Amino acid sequence: MIVEILAIGTELLLGQIVNSNATRIGERLADAGLDHFQQTVVGDNEARIAAAIDAACSRADAVILTGGLGPTKDDLTREAIARAAGVGMIFDEDQADRLRERWESSGRVMPESNLQQAERPDGSTLIANPKGTAPGIRLRIGDTWVFALPGVPAEMIPMLEDSVIPFLGDGDDSTVASRLLRTWGESESAIGERLGDLYDESANPTIAFLASGGEIKIRITAKASTRTEAAALIVPIEATIRERLGKRIFGADDDTVEVVVLRMLEERGWTLGTAESATGGLVAGRITSVPGASRVFRGSIVSYATEVKESLLGVPGDLIAEHGVVSEPVAVAMADGARGQLGADVVVAVTGSAGPDPQDQPVGTVVVAVATPEGTRVRTLRLPGDRERVRTFATTAALQLLRMSLQGVDWGSR
Amino acid sequence: MIVEILAIGTELLLGQIVNSNATRIGERLADAGLDHFQQTVVGDNEARIAAAIDAACSRADAVILTGGLGPTKDDLTREAIARAAGVGMIFDEDQADRLRERWESSGRVMPESNLQQAERPDGSTLIANPKGTAPGIRLRIGDTWVFALPGVPAEMIPMLEDSVIPFLGDGDDSTVASRLLRTWGESESAIGERLGDLYDESANPTIAFLASGGEIKIRITAKASTRTEAAALIVPIEATIRERLGKRIFGADDDTVEVVVLRMLEERGWTLGTAESATGGLVAGRITSVPGASRVFRGSIVSYATEVKESLLGVPGDLIAEHGVVSEPVAVAMADGARGQLGADVVVAVTGSAGPDPQDQPVGTVVVAVATPEGTRVRTLRLPGDRERVRTFATTAALQLLRMSLQGVDWGSR
Repeated sequence: MIVEILAIGTELLLGQIVNSNATRIGERLADAGLDHFQQTVVGDNEARIAAAIDAACSRADAVILTGGLGPTKDDLTREAIARAAGVGMIFDEDQADRLRERWESSGRVMPESNLQQAERPDGSTLIANPKGTAPGIRLRIGDTWVFALPGVPAEMIPMLEDSVIPFLGDGDDSTVASRLLRTWGESESAIGERLGDLYDESANPTIAFLASGGEIKIRITAKASTRTEAAALIVPIEATIRERLGKRIFGADDDTVEVVVLRMLEERGWTLGTAESATGGLVAGRITSVPGASRVFRGSIVSYATEVKESLLGVPGDLIAEHGVVSEPVAVAMADGARGQLGADVVVAVTGSAGPDPQDQPVGTVVVAVATPEGTRVRTLRLPGDRERVRTFATTAALQLLRMSLQGVDWGSR
Repeated sequence: MIVEILAIGTELLLGQIVNSNATRIGERLADAGLDHFQQTVVGDNEARIAAAIDAACSRADAVILTGGLGPTKDDLTREAIARAAGVGMIFDEDQADRLRERWESSGRVMPESNLQQAERPDGSTLIANPKGTAPGIRLRIGDTWVFALPGVPAEMIPMLEDSVIPFLGDGDDSTVASRLLRTWGESESAIGERLGDLYDESANPTIAFLASGGEIKIRITAKASTRTEAAALIVPIEATIRERLGKRIFGADDDTVEVVVLRMLEERGWTLGTAESATGGLVAGRITSVPGASRVFRGSIVSYATEVKESLLGVPGDLIAEHGVVSEPVAVAMADGARGQLGADVVVAVTGSAGPDPQDQPVGTVVVAVATPEGTRVRTLRLPGDRERVRTFATTAALQLLRMSLQGVDWGSR
């Protein structure tokens, strides 16, 4: 069973939004063991959507479309499917009633344009949308099943789960299992060389490398007739990789650095706080993205203005005058101050110059301090890129240095 | 001049990363007035990459490839281009020297695998990569120019700017200008109905609608022989839309709500702070994403633990006991407390239940308070979705309610 994804929307071509739907669907297809070799994006143009459906049908057993099912006039997916299938459009009275009821139940009058969402290609089946007004569409064109889902992710995902994946079954007789090992602190080529022979030998499982956000990830993928067998194939190669890379691997699969850090702190019974300047709340934002963070995380003091560093974190004014706000003594004083103010056992503090204009130090200079009951460490980093990149890397580096402190790993030469 | 984008990487198909490169390139092509109708993604498979290059060349005058130029063995773009062009590979000694020099200048020994980055299809030209080791490739296949750029965005973007866009020229004799109007507070279909006749009449400029992150955006796109003429075509339709939508439009183009808020505060000479619980620093993170935020933004107190709400923000314990932490009186007290602690004229405070487990109130309940020198307003919201979605919407809602307070706009029935 080969599945393709076809995303529809001029806003995707113009770069106004990223194609996160393809990401979510791709993840789910891999999980279900369904082969998926190609994704396509086209704009809100009926002829081009129909041509892309044709082309995808020639390669795949199933095509999942996203977008273009809304109530406005640039929503053309319904008509394009009909064109590709060579059928007409019909008006679905039951669906029209459901639309009216839905609007009435929320005490609002339905704009008439919404009735467009009651039209469907002749011969197609509507797919229920529990989270919104636009139903999905299922239609067989030749030997290929075509599914159309809304572009809004919160509506699309439950429909994918409830009505598309079960329909496609578990793919052929094979299932894919995969394992993602997350590393930090060494270059992609250095990691690649340490594992080069494994890559050469790999057929099943395969291994692949991925650099993102300062991390190098290694993906191991195995195929077998059951999930258990596929997972068993991964075990020996994972053991070999772990032996070679040691503490460079900080987590696997969904164990992001924030998840790992929170788990270690909870095991130790320590609470956490942050003191942030250049990252402006992003470190706290990453930590609190994890469900249950409240068992460990006390809070953060974002001391963006220099006076707030003094008044709330108690950083001495003469320390700032002597060393500047982007300095190791100030980062340490921020961490110490936040430990007291937040009542936290551990604090990670970040100060830096994110740009575009240099503040105190050249753009990209970031200082991270980690204070724990066992002592305080501090490090000055030089990060590449623009404001957004410096802030993102600084956030990751702060979390990684916190993780290494908790593991007792040397901060190394990075 | 029709341009297609072909992104390469199994990690894209598996949903491990989003295809942000296509987003950035699409934005830049639109800006340069180059037509762009289709994007494709394929995995790290030489035959499938070559087939996708073939197909794109049959439709487009230029194809921009991203990814697969790295130093590891799953980087196959160089070989796939050669296969699609029907040429062999050659080893570029000059490039090998540049690679060695680059590693040596940073005091490191180059892993031998990096020499893979000195290979290129016969007849191709290397494109300089000022930010990394992987050079790009330019080769003409039939009537189509093929460009290969690295997958790392920080390397790809300068190469696109310096070596691809200028090579492609400014497209045909026409240039595209576009304008994005940002609205908040009304549904997509309601906005669509208010502007339905404009959509019907629109040929040049065209209008389109886009829903994302709680905002509805309206894109106006015009084509003309010069940028000035194209921009002039947009003026009357923009005026009509603004007349109909009034204060529902909060910004245009890059004027995100955080940019608009910071500008209004700076004009008034007011400083800003935030007090956050459920959003955990994300509101401060959004505000500090704007260059120059430091002229207005004092800082944030992220009071995740209830005790920190009492100790740092001075929220009375009996107020929390009586109303719960997710309540209007507590949100108001958080805002008042933060104004004092941060020395800020204006504070936006957010408390809520983001899930997965309800905290005090059902998941999705979020309370926003905005305190200014002119008074305090507070509102309880019921937001849909999971933890990530609730936190994102709560962040946007907090910034929008702050914007409406500063503009003296009624918070409405939302």
